[in-house]
Amino acid sequence: MSKGSLFIISGPSGTGKGTVCEKLIENENIFLSVSATTRNKRLGETDGVTYFYTDVDSFKNMIQNGQMLEYAIYNGNYYGTPKKAVEDMLEHGKNVILEIEPQGALKVKKLMPEAVMIFVLPPSISELRNRLTQRGRENSEEIEKRIAAAKWEISQSPKYNFVIINDDLARCVGETLEIIKSTNKKQQLIESLLKEI
Amino acid sequence: MSKGSLFIISGPSGTGKGTVCEKLIENENIFLSVSATTRNKRLGETDGVTYFYTDVDSFKNMIQNGQMLEYAIYNGNYYGTPKKAVEDMLEHGKNVILEIEPQGALKVKKLMPEAVMIFVLPPSISELRNRLTQRGRENSEEIEKRIAAAKWEISQSPKYNFVIINDDLARCVGETLEIIKSTNKKQQLIESLLKEI
Repeated sequence: MSKGSLFIISGPSGTGKGTVCEKLIENENIFLSVSATTRNKRLGETDGVTYFYTDVDSFKNMIQNGQMLEYAIYNGNYYGTPKKAVEDMLEHGKNVILEIEPQGALKVKKLMPEAVMIFVLPPSISELRNRLTQRGRENSEEIEKRIAAAKWEISQSPKYNFVIINDDLARCVGETLEIIKSTNKKQQLIESLLKEI
Repeated sequence: MSKGSLFIISGPSGTGKGTVCEKLIENENIFLSVSATTRNKRLGETDGVTYFYTDVDSFKNMIQNGQMLEYAIYNGNYYGTPKKAVEDMLEHGKNVILEIEPQGALKVKKLMPEAVMIFVLPPSISELRNRLTQRGRENSEEIEKRIAAAKWEISQSPKYNFVIINDDLARCVGETLEIIKSTNKKQQLIESLLKEI
């Protein structure tokens, strides 16, 4: 069995990367990475599936020991991606998707340089503003902050392996699936070449 | 006018990357980077076209000042890629190709992280050995050394933006041209998005 590959999917807030990921995991052998959190388990959630639940001390230890690929604090709770959980899935031949904002994405790439980085671009800034307005999570001031942040984020996109344009969801998901399939095929060839030497 | 893009084409010795590059520069707006050298100008060569000719002290100064993307010494002469020459071509909207062995390629990527890295894989190791034998430049001991080096080189290929398989030259060149065109198109979109903010 070939090792799976890690795909980091990133892009500005409102670019639709979450929806792309939801569609991707409907396909065979594509999984989202499971995050760790210090918040309490809620009804209907499963440890190791929804999240890995842990206490603050253990979480902080994992950060200090370089065992967290990235982490953030929301509402006083820690959330992060444990490196070992990702590596275990890869060892089992799974394709792992990590959906993450651009600043975190570049940090993860430093820790796992073999990760395939995919940046989701909006077709235009006015369209990005429309989407942020329509989802109605932020007020207009917060939306303009996110647009301003998008400037730095988009300027970083040439550092990614692939840049895809989310002008049409189905086309964008199709292009990403092609990247995943082609990466798997090449990974198999690389493994067979290395065995041949 | 959009800025051009830098493409680093690399791969094991004998993988056919040189031939791919020769075919690529037959296309509009694709140029090989011009190297600097300390060897003497030969009849029929042109300064700034064949090479930039320079003396050893100037060359060493450029290395120390971080002005050489990479360099090597052959037969007592220095050869290297001046960063400024590449940047000038990019500013003029040209697509620049840098054909370079894998160890140098990863160094250049650190200095120019926006470079698009393309790794050319052989279809099999036996085919790689055939090609090295057929071109007749190395004896069998040297060929086995190159095959052994290919192991590390191929293991580095997942760090590249794109991996292409040179099983058929025309197909391989076609795939690389698609990468160049698609990179240019995305670069234009990125520039227009950044202007819109």
